[in-house]
Parts: sequence; C-alpha cells; structure tokens
Amino acid sequence: MDDARVVIRDVLMRDGLQNLTEFIPTELKIELFRMIAASGVPEIEFTSFVSPKAVPQFSDAAEVARAVMAIAPPGVRPAALVPNLKGAQLALASGVRQLEFVVSVSESHNLSNVRRTRAESVDELRKILALREAHPDLTVRVGMATVFGCPFEGKISPAVVLGFAGQLYDLGIRGISLSDTIGSGNPREVREVSRLCAAELPDAIFSVHLHNTRGLGPANAYAAFESGIRVFDGAIGGLGGCPFAPGARGNIATEDLVYLFEGMGVATGIRMEALLEIARHLQGKHPAVRCSSSMLEVGPPRALGAVAGAAGEQKWSG
Amino acid sequence: MDDARVVIRDVLMRDGLQNLTEFIPTELKIELFRMIAASGVPEIEFTSFVSPKAVPQFSDAAEVARAVMAIAPPGVRPAALVPNLKGAQLALASGVRQLEFVVSVSESHNLSNVRRTRAESVDELRKILALREAHPDLTVRVGMATVFGCPFEGKISPAVVLGFAGQLYDLGIRGISLSDTIGSGNPREVREVSRLCAAELPDAIFSVHLHNTRGLGPANAYAAFESGIRVFDGAIGGLGGCPFAPGARGNIATEDLVYLFEGMGVATGIRMEALLEIARHLQGKHPAVRCSSSMLEVGPPRALGAVAGAAGEQKWSG
Repeated sequence: MDDARVVIRDVLMRDGLQNLTEFIPTELKIELFRMIAASGVPEIEFTSFVSPKAVPQFSDAAEVARAVMAIAPPGVRPAALVPNLKGAQLALASGVRQLEFVVSVSESHNLSNVRRTRAESVDELRKILALREAHPDLTVRVGMATVFGCPFEGKISPAVVLGFAGQLYDLGIRGISLSDTIGSGNPREVREVSRLCAAELPDAIFSVHLHNTRGLGPANAYAAFESGIRVFDGAIGGLGGCPFAPGARGNIATEDLVYLFEGMGVATGIRMEALLEIARHLQGKHPAVRCSSSMLEVGPPRALGAVAGAAGEQKWSG
Repeated sequence: MDDARVVIRDVLMRDGLQNLTEFIPTELKIELFRMIAASGVPEIEFTSFVSPKAVPQFSDAAEVARAVMAIAPPGVRPAALVPNLKGAQLALASGVRQLEFVVSVSESHNLSNVRRTRAESVDELRKILALREAHPDLTVRVGMATVFGCPFEGKISPAVVLGFAGQLYDLGIRGISLSDTIGSGNPREVREVSRLCAAELPDAIFSVHLHNTRGLGPANAYAAFESGIRVFDGAIGGLGGCPFAPGARGNIATEDLVYLFEGMGVATGIRMEALLEIARHLQGKHPAVRCSSSMLEVGPPRALGAVAGAAGEQKWSG
C-alpha cells in the first residue's frame, strides 16, 4: 500500500449541483469541468444520467458528457452516475466509460432513494455489467449508500456492509464506495468498516464518500486513511451532501481534503489555489450557490510574517 | 490505559472569555461555573490571575475564585491559569489549588506571549512550585504552547517538544498540555508528538488543547485519542482559541468533543443538552458573544423519524 499519495475524486458537478434548484448553464458546467481537470483532480464525477423530470439540473447530461469526453486531458477520468440500465445506455452512447451505480445497504433507504429493493438494484446492476460484452472498456464502480447510518434503520452492522460488498464483488465489481449518506458516521465506525472490508476483500479498491454534516468529515477521512483507504470523494466548495439540517455542512470539501492530506505529507497532485478559484468562480456566477469550506473561509496557514502580527494580540494563553 | 472514557476540561471561562472586549459580569461568570459543573464537566478552567490592565475581563479573578471554590461540587476541580508567581500567590490566597502555567516551546512565541525567555519562564515555574512547601495540596499543570506550530518559527520538531516536556517532568510536573496554539496541527503531527511524549515520559499525563481553526480539531482529537491521550481541553460554544483569521473557528467546542467521543462509545460523563443550554444562555445574555459549534448549529443526529422525511428529498445519490 502506498502511504505517500491518495486519489481524490471530485463530485462537485454531480453531487454538488444535483440539489440546486437553479439550473447551471451547460457552458458553465463544461467550463467547471475544464477548470477541475486543470487543477490536478484525477477523477471527476461530472453528471448523472437520471430522468430530467427527477433532476432537471441534469437534463443536459448527454451534452455535457460529449463535451467533457472530448476535452478531458490524459490522466483525467470523467465519470457519471447512473441510477439504472437506461442511464447507463445513455452514458455509453455519450462516450462515457466510467459509471457509478448507487445502491443503499439498507433496504428501506434503497426503496426510498431509487424505489427498488436491493435485490432489484442488484438485478439492474447485472444488466449494466452485461453492457461490458459490447464495451470491454466500460468500468463500473458502486457507491454503497447509508454504510455509516440510515435515516430509517439507524446504524448498519459492519457485517451487513461486508456481506453486501461481497455480493458486489462476486458480480465482478472492484471499485466500491463506502458512503456516509446522512453524515452520522464517526472515526471508529469508519475504521472498523474500512479495515473489515479491506481485510476480507483485498482485491477490491474501497473508497469513502464522506459528509461534513457535523464537522467529522476530516476526522473520518483520517480514520479511513489510517485504515488503508486511498481513494476519497470530495466536492469543491463543500457543496451537496444532503445538508438537510439548517447549519449542516455538505460533502467534505475537496480543498479541505487536500489541506488534510498535503499537510500530513500525503500527495494529492492537486493545486489548492486552483480549487479555491473554481469555488469562487462558481459563486461569482451564481451567488445563490453557497460554498463552504475551511480553506475558503480561513485559507491555509499563512506565511509566518503574515500571522506574526496577529499572534501578539493574545496574551497569557496556551 | 482506559479506552472507555476520557476527561474533558472546559476552558470557556478562561480561554473563551479572555479576548472578549465586553466585560462579562461577575455574577454571570459564577452562574456559568455552576452550570458547567452541573453538566458533568470534571475540570473547569475558570479564570486567569493576570494583570487587570492586560486582561480587564479577569479583573474579578479573586472574587470569582472565592465563589467557585465555595460552590464547586465534589468531583469537580476548578483550575486557574497563572502567568507568573504573583498570579499563583493570588490564586492560592483565593483558595484555588489547581494551577495552569503556560510556556511556549518556541522561544520567540514565549517572548511575544509573556515577555520572557523560556529559561525565565522555567525559573518562574520553579518559584511557583516552591509554594507547594506551604501548600502540599497545590497541583500545577503546564500548558506547552505552539507545540504544533509557531507563528514565528513554523513547525516545531517533536524532539524539541519532548526535550522541553522532559525539563518540565524533571521539575516534578506530571500534567502537561500539548497546545495547538495557532491551529495549524494535523492528525499525523498530533499522533507523532503524542506517541513520543507518552513513550518517553510514561508517568506524565499528557493532554491536548486543540483549536478548530481550519476544521481539523475533531480529526486531531481522534488522532490524540488513538495515540493514548485521555485528557482534552474544550471550550463550550467553541469560543476563544485565538481565531485571528476571519471565518476561523476557535477552540474545539466541548460539545463537539462530547459528540465525537460519545459517538465512538467513549464516555465523557457530560450531558450534551446541558452544554448547549450553557452556550445559548451566554449568548442570550450577551448577543455579541458568537458561539460556534456543529452541535449548536446542527445538533446530534435526530431520532430516526425526524430525519426520515428530509432524506426522501435526495434522489439518486450516495
């Protein structure tokens, strides 16, 4: 295992935009992709091939897909979320070759989220995987939702998570995301599940999709890293992530992940300043978009001189 | 080592109030102490015996001290910060028996913070420790500032931290706080220093004093816990902590520490709701006081039913 680097997947364009009521123009989406790719992010989840009625924001999925597949530089993988076979077919027709399929480990959340039982979701996944016969370059990852807590069923047993990951593994899935869908996970749970999955399914590449709902995003990311996880989802500007409670933060911000890892000497290959510029650009074009991250609000520790003056203000303190 | 519980020291009344320009009336301070003690916090740093000219907020230190020593329930330790021998004498005269002395591991920060070299600070500490001859029940802890970064000298070598902790140990100090004074530490640094100190000075009880400046407070607390630290400073409402950058958070909030640890099954003995009530009470009396914590802004995960409705809003997502 490589302790010196991590892979960060940015999901701003998919997870960050999906709940925005304001439509982000197709041109701006393509521009965002170009900027994100230029920042050094190696994998970009850029849209969702979902019914335009369900999520009008992604009614331009095919158009965005064709554009990003044409401009993606070498070393940058564009990925799209697909909720079903139809979405996968549309994605393929637009040239996308990396798909993300979502299924919840809790039956009740899967029913609520995609109106299917888990078994029905797995059937749908099988059909998507069958597309690989005609498209051997197709890669399908699976995002397992509600791994660290379900709004209906509460905590999910790590054994249940492993059992479901094993089912996916048996279908040939090698990229599996452990998602803290409602932002209720803590570092000990993240460690337990990550270690268990890595130990039992050593050939799979597990990633984590963390929310910073209650400020534990970085702690959970650190726990995941210490448990062997090397692939992390983040969303520039901390957008998305289902912040249903007032005051809650969304997805862990990509720039906060970069700050965490680069600070610990773990390379991300991503330029911090480029990420902040993307968030500011989006917010400049659409002030209704409310970005939120420590790096946007505070910034990295400044050069010594800049901090020095302020430090003198505080006396007698530790 | 006990993995099942931690000790949380609340420093709201000292660190949280010291930079407030508005004077908090003595009666309210005493009321805060009473409320904090009733919440289950076992150790409360409640004032600083510092020159009233330097910090007018603590001009009532002696009066508050006499009151809290009279009302502190069994099992609750009141503690006061003292910057020098004179402060220690005043604290003792007011009945306080647990003192916190601060010295920076970086020479330049110590000069800036207390206008003394480290050697001069250690001399002052010796004089304070000599007071134990007349007061054998006196306990002195030392807060080591700038352990995880200095505004003037940058990163501090763990060997320098250990060397200085060893000097304190040789003087008979057994309670030593590792402080992230400018909020620049990361989990890997916290782990490295914590492990080194615990391994080399196993008789000392190390604690951490963490800031949440850039959102890494909980991650650093988790790293410290995993490295054997069992005593944590927090400030109710996330107050204090020298948030010199706009948007920066202050001390790690006591309520966020309680959320982190209780969620992981580590007992704190503290009632969450009581902490939130204290923050709201203080803010209600003094709206200029700006409390900030995940628990105040979002709250703990709600009962399943309460969350269920909101979860249905997000479709096709992991």
